[in-house]
Amino acid sequence: MLVNTIHAVYTCDMNEEFTIPVLGEGKIPSPLKYSTGKSDVHFVNDDHRVVFDVLYDKNRDPQRTDLLEYAGPRNKIYFLPRHVHAGILTCGGLCPGLNDVIRAITRSLWRNYEVRRISGIRFGYAGLIPENNLPTIDLNPDVVDDIHRIGGSILGSSRGGGARTEDIVDAIERLNISMLFVIGGDGTQRGAMNITKEILKRGLKIAVIGIPKTIDNDLSYIEKSFGFETAVTEASKTVYAAHAEAHSAEHGIGLVKLMGRHSGFIAAHTAIASNDVNFVLIPEVPFQLEGKNGFLEHLVRRIKRRGHAVVIVAEGAGQNLMNPTNKTDESGNEQFADIGVYLKQIITQYFENIGMTMHLKYLDPSYLIRGAVAVPNDSMYCVRLAHNAVHAAMAGKTGVLVSYLNGHFVHMPMATAVSKRNTIDPSGSLWRDVIEATQQPPNMVMQK
Amino acid sequence: MLVNTIHAVYTCDMNEEFTIPVLGEGKIPSPLKYSTGKSDVHFVNDDHRVVFDVLYDKNRDPQRTDLLEYAGPRNKIYFLPRHVHAGILTCGGLCPGLNDVIRAITRSLWRNYEVRRISGIRFGYAGLIPENNLPTIDLNPDVVDDIHRIGGSILGSSRGGGARTEDIVDAIERLNISMLFVIGGDGTQRGAMNITKEILKRGLKIAVIGIPKTIDNDLSYIEKSFGFETAVTEASKTVYAAHAEAHSAEHGIGLVKLMGRHSGFIAAHTAIASNDVNFVLIPEVPFQLEGKNGFLEHLVRRIKRRGHAVVIVAEGAGQNLMNPTNKTDESGNEQFADIGVYLKQIITQYFENIGMTMHLKYLDPSYLIRGAVAVPNDSMYCVRLAHNAVHAAMAGKTGVLVSYLNGHFVHMPMATAVSKRNTIDPSGSLWRDVIEATQQPPNMVMQK
Amino acid sequence: MLVNTIHAVYTCDMNEEFTIPVLGEGKIPSPLKYSTGKSDVHFVNDDHRVVFDVLYDKNRDPQRTDLLEYAGPRNKIYFLPRHVHAGILTCGGLCPGLNDVIRAITRSLWRNYEVRRISGIRFGYAGLIPENNLPTIDLNPDVVDDIHRIGGSILGSSRGGGARTEDIVDAIERLNISMLFVIGGDGTQRGAMNITKEILKRGLKIAVIGIPKTIDNDLSYIEKSFGFETAVTEASKTVYAAHAEAHSAEHGIGLVKLMGRHSGFIAAHTAIASNDVNFVLIPEVPFQLEGKNGFLEHLVRRIKRRGHAVVIVAEGAGQNLMNPTNKTDESGNEQFADIGVYLKQIITQYFENIGMTMHLKYLDPSYLIRGAVAVPNDSMYCVRLAHNAVHAAMAGKTGVLVSYLNGHFVHMPMATAVSKRNTIDPSGSLWRDVIEATQQPPNMVMQK
Amino acid sequence: MLVNTIHAVYTCDMNEEFTIPVLGEGKIPSPLKYSTGKSDVHFVNDDHRVVFDVLYDKNRDPQRTDLLEYAGPRNKIYFLPRHVHAGILTCGGLCPGLNDVIRAITRSLWRNYEVRRISGIRFGYAGLIPENNLPTIDLNPDVVDDIHRIGGSILGSSRGGGARTEDIVDAIERLNISMLFVIGGDGTQRGAMNITKEILKRGLKIAVIGIPKTIDNDLSYIEKSFGFETAVTEASKTVYAAHAEAHSAEHGIGLVKLMGRHSGFIAAHTAIASNDVNFVLIPEVPFQLEGKNGFLEHLVRRIKRRGHAVVIVAEGAGQNLMNPTNKTDESGNEQFADIGVYLKQIITQYFENIGMTMHLKYLDPSYLIRGAVAVPNDSMYCVRLAHNAVHAAMAGKTGVLVSYLNGHFVHMPMATAVSKRNTIDPSGSLWRDVIEATQQPPNMVMQK
Repeated sequence: MLVNTIHAVYTCDMNEEFTIPVLGEGKIPSPLKYSTGKSDVHFVNDDHRVVFDVLYDKNRDPQRTDLLEYAGPRNKIYFLPRHVHAGILTCGGLCPGLNDVIRAITRSLWRNYEVRRISGIRFGYAGLIPENNLPTIDLNPDVVDDIHRIGGSILGSSRGGGARTEDIVDAIERLNISMLFVIGGDGTQRGAMNITKEILKRGLKIAVIGIPKTIDNDLSYIEKSFGFETAVTEASKTVYAAHAEAHSAEHGIGLVKLMGRHSGFIAAHTAIASNDVNFVLIPEVPFQLEGKNGFLEHLVRRIKRRGHAVVIVAEGAGQNLMNPTNKTDESGNEQFADIGVYLKQIITQYFENIGMTMHLKYLDPSYLIRGAVAVPNDSMYCVRLAHNAVHAAMAGKTGVLVSYLNGHFVHMPMATAVSKRNTIDPSGSLWRDVIEATQQPPNMVMQK
Repeated sequence: MLVNTIHAVYTCDMNEEFTIPVLGEGKIPSPLKYSTGKSDVHFVNDDHRVVFDVLYDKNRDPQRTDLLEYAGPRNKIYFLPRHVHAGILTCGGLCPGLNDVIRAITRSLWRNYEVRRISGIRFGYAGLIPENNLPTIDLNPDVVDDIHRIGGSILGSSRGGGARTEDIVDAIERLNISMLFVIGGDGTQRGAMNITKEILKRGLKIAVIGIPKTIDNDLSYIEKSFGFETAVTEASKTVYAAHAEAHSAEHGIGLVKLMGRHSGFIAAHTAIASNDVNFVLIPEVPFQLEGKNGFLEHLVRRIKRRGHAVVIVAEGAGQNLMNPTNKTDESGNEQFADIGVYLKQIITQYFENIGMTMHLKYLDPSYLIRGAVAVPNDSMYCVRLAHNAVHAAMAGKTGVLVSYLNGHFVHMPMATAVSKRNTIDPSGSLWRDVIEATQQPPNMVMQK
Repeated sequence: MLVNTIHAVYTCDMNEEFTIPVLGEGKIPSPLKYSTGKSDVHFVNDDHRVVFDVLYDKNRDPQRTDLLEYAGPRNKIYFLPRHVHAGILTCGGLCPGLNDVIRAITRSLWRNYEVRRISGIRFGYAGLIPENNLPTIDLNPDVVDDIHRIGGSILGSSRGGGARTEDIVDAIERLNISMLFVIGGDGTQRGAMNITKEILKRGLKIAVIGIPKTIDNDLSYIEKSFGFETAVTEASKTVYAAHAEAHSAEHGIGLVKLMGRHSGFIAAHTAIASNDVNFVLIPEVPFQLEGKNGFLEHLVRRIKRRGHAVVIVAEGAGQNLMNPTNKTDESGNEQFADIGVYLKQIITQYFENIGMTMHLKYLDPSYLIRGAVAVPNDSMYCVRLAHNAVHAAMAGKTGVLVSYLNGHFVHMPMATAVSKRNTIDPSGSLWRDVIEATQQPPNMVMQK
Repeated sequence: MLVNTIHAVYTCDMNEEFTIPVLGEGKIPSPLKYSTGKSDVHFVNDDHRVVFDVLYDKNRDPQRTDLLEYAGPRNKIYFLPRHVHAGILTCGGLCPGLNDVIRAITRSLWRNYEVRRISGIRFGYAGLIPENNLPTIDLNPDVVDDIHRIGGSILGSSRGGGARTEDIVDAIERLNISMLFVIGGDGTQRGAMNITKEILKRGLKIAVIGIPKTIDNDLSYIEKSFGFETAVTEASKTVYAAHAEAHSAEHGIGLVKLMGRHSGFIAAHTAIASNDVNFVLIPEVPFQLEGKNGFLEHLVRRIKRRGHAVVIVAEGAGQNLMNPTNKTDESGNEQFADIGVYLKQIITQYFENIGMTMHLKYLDPSYLIRGAVAVPNDSMYCVRLAHNAVHAAMAGKTGVLVSYLNGHFVHMPMATAVSKRNTIDPSGSLWRDVIEATQQPPNMVMQK
């Protein structure tokens, strides 16, 4: 206990049922090698919880918070390891660390639980659809030994593609899979939730465990998504190059488009990290182009004052300023109009109109970022996520994601995780730090 | 609110006084540029708190936790910016990110608060001792523009060196400093705490704000120290090289010594990140060399089974196995016997004794790590720490560290921060993940 | 001398005049610090030459070759260092290493020759035109201390922009510059040649020394241009990411556009370096898209056989396949149609037409490459180029480039250097190694 | 032909026999895929030569030079590809790029010549000695696909170890190997030369081709050894860290020991590249520690003048200053006394004696450098060396190294390559550039 601080008291409020689904009671002693003598301490039981809301305002006392189930190995497990057939699949766009997760799941199953049948499913859910005729890949520690040094996914990935849940569950049954690890984002986990429901409906004993993958960091209830730090690392290199272009030209502008359909986390973190950025445009904070308080006029002022400028725009920013594409991608997501290319044109035209020299360089490093090899901190995180996912599956949990919150790994119901997005709070401390680091005007909208 | 989870209820327990010292009431309106219109939301008040303990066990209900003061800009500040003279100093061993912190404090003071007198103090507290005759450096955004691309500290750093607190406060008075930013570790912050006390005793209006620096991550109540991710990044490269040496030789052993006097965090994180390590020896987990369950016998078994091995040892591990040096360093810390060199000798001798070929390569990357340029995630973290430190000082807080806990920046009383160390819990999930990733025996001690 | 080899005998053929222009005879003893005692060996005299053509075919004996003037410090110099006013400018597109060259010229002048007036001219030749009103920057070792850690040029750069040679020489006279270092490419050096002629015509004692800058490596008689290795390093990272995208998708294609208007060196080196590339399209080797032996059909076959493909295209490749833009850039160079975007469309359409699934990712890292910080080998090269440029200027040479050939630094007349381009010989060993590494068909043209 | 330069005329001097040994006349048409139509140009014949000496002094006219055999694919080859059994081995200390060479030899044999039996021999020559019982590894493009992303050698490496040449040739015969690729340094190539002689003596049709490996770049007649650029890259990072340590401490000294037993190339290149180094000590340039012109006194002056210093010492420097170890390593090379550790002690003591504060940090990155993954330029070079080695073997050449000289790949007789070392010429331009970059005194010896 700290000295001289205010304390709070928790009391548990049990009037709602806690229902992370479990396939059945764990009766099999865990084969984990530390399960002897003193180190039984490493086992975790379902009574351990992690507090969700940590912000407290004494003016609103008392306050209520969720308590999440603590992840980790259970003393008794549900599956008999030598009968387990595990499947792993990766879905959606690439993200640094996919191979680290595949490798760590495989190694944890093989070496810690001595599971000997692990199948890599090709190209996400597509690999489960018979007509695609995509054979699985046998995984073992030798096969995965060096895959973490390569970007992408050795299993391949693909976007949703409209397979019926029933067909997927049929395929899982045919393959005789007893636990399925689903590495993917929003849509993928929604798919996994439906698969879980169908499995439970059929009374099958198959665990479905999600590992959340979102390079944009936009999954709710998940503090940090794997690959995000690598994305910021690579994005920062691009911003350095944009800065070099900007300060080396007369009235130079470096314009960088970064990923972030609904959430500007990569843009915000990169802007603070490089601390050389002057404007950050993100989906969460609307802005106007025209007018005295519009982005363009602020940009001109910056150029006049300092001779150059660096601008980061997240791909989902300013969609209201352009004509919608009215198209969807293979996952069924709305296809965004390209704000980077649009800004490039608008800025160029604006400077032409006011007769001011300007040299704009436009950089879009998205694929460089997605295909990068994970930095060590992400690799570490991938390994820990994978370990906890394997423990969850072996314990018979299903329909859960492994998540990291307030310094701890927890089990998060899939339904919860996909219920809303994680976005930057425009009145929170992250965006405040962006404003302080960039000195950009807090509101580039019409002031009434 | 999540669906289907257990909830808890907080209630505030006010029977202890909350005493982050403040120099006086904030009466001056903050000049922060977002302090107009709608974006007043960015100001924070002292009633906002962050919950400290987030682990909850329903069997121990009710549970008590500390509530920490939320960091951030205050609507009313204590200092009049144009009268402020800020001082910055860095103490102790190098750590990636020092220049990022110096840069961001300078820029935040200059650009956000329009402070125009910022002095860099040379070589830590030594720069405040008149007989050392070390002139200060004038800092401004131009001077610090590119310093974040260089390792080390542009101010220079040094170990304690026994100056009397009174003399230091005399010097601060002579320099007419109104706020002092102290970037340093354990001993440095203990010094800052004494300086604060002396300042308060003299009734001076000088704020002292600490930015915790500990590459070992061993300061308590501080979730993550800046530079730590860079350290893991660089350490991982060394482990890759050690792995190359080990697997390229017959019975190859790569032995890597990493920093960590009291806490094995760098060793543990690096081992999980590289996922190619077989043994991790840290101060928190005692081990024996000899005997059937000793490290050496396990190492021989690994070599026999797989032909090579990678070993990480933290500098503070196994001190009980060697003769103490009975020396202290300039900071007055006990000088450790060199466990890396010792292990190298012991292992070599052991294999000779049992007549087994072996090729050991020993790598000690400590100075490479300390002097590295910060990775972008650390840079971002440095900037955010610095912003919050500046806000704390402007608000008239004193005797506090800026810390990061459960996803939020908070004010931590210096007395608390130095009251105990942060160490790896041998029964916690981090060490469990090390055991799972390395497959090393959980206890290499005599089993009774 | 080697044992057991054939020898050749050189004899000098003096029937052509050697005319590296010199402003006058060197009469001033060099102040270089190694000009004492034994180390006079470091001085070089004008009789030292480097053989240009090193390929020899005994069937064509005898063979003739050029002999180039050896670069390096002269015992007697032309300029009195304390009267020297040096100017440095950078022209054209960015290239890694510009700041290394600026730094090393400044340091060499200041520290080795004790020159105390060094002016950085802003934005290339534009900085010499009075109406642009661009003040010069005073350069000294402190100013340039850390600039090599930043991409771009601290002086700024710009494209030609049509200033008259006479006006530029007027400006040089007004600034009272005695030696001008011109860092730039083809057009820039052509400009420098005209400036030299005008200077000589006016009888001025001003040395003009070129440092060749061409990220494409397309300057003739220059074995290696600075920044090229950095370009290959960065381009290789992009190809890795493209490879990750390609092998992670069903029928994945990674298409990377790299710099190279007239010469495919970056494309060729990168393809061999990454050794994961299947097709390399360069300006020097024509290809067809359609037909049985066309690129598209070969690409389809590769995809059918292996499931994925990586394609590199240099920006100047396949210009004959598209409509010309009929535009020029600011330097007056023809603006190329965008072969990368064109191929992306054509490939996509082709696969659609034949009803084959395909996922193409297009990467264009040009600005990331140009703005990168130089890798150490390039930094070293920049320093050596700069030293030799300074020696040439101090010796009163003018109208020459410093070049590197067959392992030695030489003086190359500007007229020669701009007389033709350096391109990949389609029948040479570099292109042969590309074919062997990629297994691409050597001729994707109609076979008669 | 250049305009306005002096020319030379070569004439061939055939009075010495040229004797790159060939197993027999090439009669088999090459299967290389570019051997059709126009691209026959890619074949090379034995009449093509490369000039060795390119420095020319008109005062010594005429001058004599060696002409080396041009490397590359021959139209007619000696071996029938489907009968070939190739062996590959790596010897001696690790070096970046070993796996790139192994990979490229394997791919070139398999894909270009359609050889289907390729054996990797474990741990160098040791893998050919029956009593070591080390089974070979079957190599093919799948096995080697990603090995270039890993440091070290997948085959393993070891030092010589005293096997008799006859036994090795017996082993080669037993394995029925028809071509052996030997990747190694000085001693290894001397061994390969003896193996070649024994093979020729026995009348066997086995080609032995060397790929020179020397991280120190100390093999004569070889302009650049693979891995060298990676070594400079990694060494430069260490020097940056040393610089951070030095400039961040009062009277800070960063002392870096780099590889270089007989040749200071890594030290010299790194010093120029980082351009932050003050003293470079190499084996080729003797120095004294004591006395007015000794290293220690110069170091003290530098510290007094500038407050910090960075020193690079090559491992073979200053051996005369210490007691010899009188030991040899496993390869039979003399074991050097540790000049880095010695200097650290001597410097510390010297400053103590004169009562001057000083903080020295000592960095020895050797194993980090050796085990690093090759940078792209080295990878490219490895691939090209490997291609040419395969062509040489297929053409029936034997007893040769593949070397790179004056921009071209050549065949170098092993006997020549091992006849003397490549060292830095203390009166040449490389060392001159070191002196100019570091400003170190050219001679730190007693001046008579």
